[in-house]
Amino acid sequence: MSSTTKRISSISPSLTLAITAKAKAMKAEGKSVIGFGAGEPDFNTPQHIIDAAKDALDKGYTKYTPSSGLPALRKKIAEKFKEEQGLDYDPSQIIVSSGAKHSIFNAMFALVEDGDEVIIPAPYWLTYPEVVKVCGGKSVFVEGRKENHFKIAPEDLKKAITPKTKLLIFNSPSNPTGAVYTEEEIRAIGKVVEEAGIWVISDEIYSKLIYDGVQHFSIARVSEKVKEHTVIVDGVSKTYAMTGWRIGWLAAPKEVAKAIDSFQSHATSNPTSISQYAALAALNGSEEELIKMRDIFNDRRKFMIERIRSIDGLDCIEPDGAFYIMLIVDRLYGKRYNGRKINGSLDIADMLLEKGVAVVPGIAFGDDECVRLSYAISKEDIAEGLDRIEAFVKEVF
Amino acid sequence: MSSTTKRISSISPSLTLAITAKAKAMKAEGKSVIGFGAGEPDFNTPQHIIDAAKDALDKGYTKYTPSSGLPALRKKIAEKFKEEQGLDYDPSQIIVSSGAKHSIFNAMFALVEDGDEVIIPAPYWLTYPEVVKVCGGKSVFVEGRKENHFKIAPEDLKKAITPKTKLLIFNSPSNPTGAVYTEEEIRAIGKVVEEAGIWVISDEIYSKLIYDGVQHFSIARVSEKVKEHTVIVDGVSKTYAMTGWRIGWLAAPKEVAKAIDSFQSHATSNPTSISQYAALAALNGSEEELIKMRDIFNDRRKFMIERIRSIDGLDCIEPDGAFYIMLIVDRLYGKRYNGRKINGSLDIADMLLEKGVAVVPGIAFGDDECVRLSYAISKEDIAEGLDRIEAFVKEVF
Repeated sequence: MSSTTKRISSISPSLTLAITAKAKAMKAEGKSVIGFGAGEPDFNTPQHIIDAAKDALDKGYTKYTPSSGLPALRKKIAEKFKEEQGLDYDPSQIIVSSGAKHSIFNAMFALVEDGDEVIIPAPYWLTYPEVVKVCGGKSVFVEGRKENHFKIAPEDLKKAITPKTKLLIFNSPSNPTGAVYTEEEIRAIGKVVEEAGIWVISDEIYSKLIYDGVQHFSIARVSEKVKEHTVIVDGVSKTYAMTGWRIGWLAAPKEVAKAIDSFQSHATSNPTSISQYAALAALNGSEEELIKMRDIFNDRRKFMIERIRSIDGLDCIEPDGAFYIMLIVDRLYGKRYNGRKINGSLDIADMLLEKGVAVVPGIAFGDDECVRLSYAISKEDIAEGLDRIEAFVKEVF
Repeated sequence: MSSTTKRISSISPSLTLAITAKAKAMKAEGKSVIGFGAGEPDFNTPQHIIDAAKDALDKGYTKYTPSSGLPALRKKIAEKFKEEQGLDYDPSQIIVSSGAKHSIFNAMFALVEDGDEVIIPAPYWLTYPEVVKVCGGKSVFVEGRKENHFKIAPEDLKKAITPKTKLLIFNSPSNPTGAVYTEEEIRAIGKVVEEAGIWVISDEIYSKLIYDGVQHFSIARVSEKVKEHTVIVDGVSKTYAMTGWRIGWLAAPKEVAKAIDSFQSHATSNPTSISQYAALAALNGSEEELIKMRDIFNDRRKFMIERIRSIDGLDCIEPDGAFYIMLIVDRLYGKRYNGRKINGSLDIADMLLEKGVAVVPGIAFGDDECVRLSYAISKEDIAEGLDRIEAFVKEVF
């Protein structure tokens, strides 16, 4: 009999672990591996933010802070929501946590009861269904169709709602697809949500990484009723190349924020004080560095789309945000590589690794027809990696 | 109907919130308040640790780390367990989290199932029963008697064990009492635990703050069987004046460590990278600064005990560790102050605040006969605060 609880034993072992281990072993042997797996910007944290952290260290800001974050930081985040999305939140409705992942966990822990259904558009970020399970909920997947840029249709969402549905996890821009919903699309989704009276956890962690003038629109803007049933999650990790600092936050209706505030005070207490001062500097500073990083991402994105489309047998849907592209590889299925039959995205990932390219198999995100490529690596590496992928495809056909 | 889950709504509002708010308001009005409430060292983080953090910032160590911590840090922690307690752990059995509180939450989340009973020696750190509730468990309190320095007797523990008992939370040195169990006492407790086959979460966060040559002895040393049912929790917060950095860890049997590893990867991911490098420097560095801080704590402790005992109507049990003293105040109950009858520790805390002294009422820790005083404040403040307490007592008698 297991000593550990049912909820914690329910967590799936990582599908990608074997591939990651293999990539690591190859590198250790001195083999060249281009890693398209990155989930974090390849830039340094901007210098003015580093300097703010050093300043905090010199000032002795190394003590406990209020468990839901520094008042100045919560206030600044609330101001940003107002400025950028026209959303009114009192600072008491903002809970700062140890990364946006932590904010998602907190929101789910506060909202999902045993037996609740949680609707997750697929392809999805692989942590969502794991957290749903841990909280005793059941994931219900709604497929985002490729012909609709991987985005879900309001009528499909509507069909998935049952009396047991507690909430929808909404993620625009999306990891892994890079899809960005338009205001119109979000209003249609919001209407379904509002009519059903369900909650939304809106993961907006990539909201600043949107390209070519497409605009971010938070689902909480759809109506006051939707806002009163929405928890927005965001953070500094992807926007300011601050993944290791672990600062994320959520904005929630008062009752939910208060419950999470109490819970966090007993479960983790405050996020790192030094990181909070750094995050405050990031939000107070100019967006110059962010724009620079975004331009570089955009340049890589365009290069990558064009290069992928030049390879016979592959395809992709143009992503408008984040830093991922889903490479559509299912035309290779049923064929053989080195005598081995290709049955799905795990096989592709495994075979590509033998060619010196690490990718994440789409099955990890609920889409076995694709593999995910990140462009949070240098353009040179992207070029070399896609050359290797092309060589692989030629061997297969 | 509440939108939030039963588990999260079960968290009790803080008993001390009203007093904290009142103290804050008084200070804002310019009134002098001596704060005996501190739960963190009043020292700065040692300079060599600050320097290590700056070095990490300069080197760009601001990215994700493995979610359970840097391999070098996990290895160092395992080595320390071996060196100091003779305990063998593989680095894979060490999970680094965002503070020892987070480690306690993780351990409880991994071990406590709906309906499980958790034995908590009283007086207890107020977070324990809240986390038990959140995990669906039921707290069963075993009273540590004052005549036994607030420590529980093995026979009382034995009586509290039922078929539903999952684990004992053991905390030596103790917050709030400062009690340190001897090796002999721990072996006796361990024997009961071993015979019953229950688990132990051993919170050893104050293990380096023990005075006058008393030795720390981890309950995991009692036997291999006890070790195989024990999760040890520790961290850098109290030892190195690093509360704001949020680095704690646990050492657990392999199955439990593995489950927590997966869980943490989805719930929070890695603790702050910069803090991890700082913690590594703390563990690698000399203990000179720690010894200096401990000597200062010890000096304050002695001064405080003597001063308390000089006040007619008050008493205390000499604490051997941590930086708290439980001030026994129940001889004042039933008497009047400013016309108001004194009914318990909440009244005492409220009245002392009017005299310019902030303390934590013992009822928050499950002991209404005491209030907790921290000596993580300057000796001058301690002296002034105790003068005010004496004046209060004289007015009562």
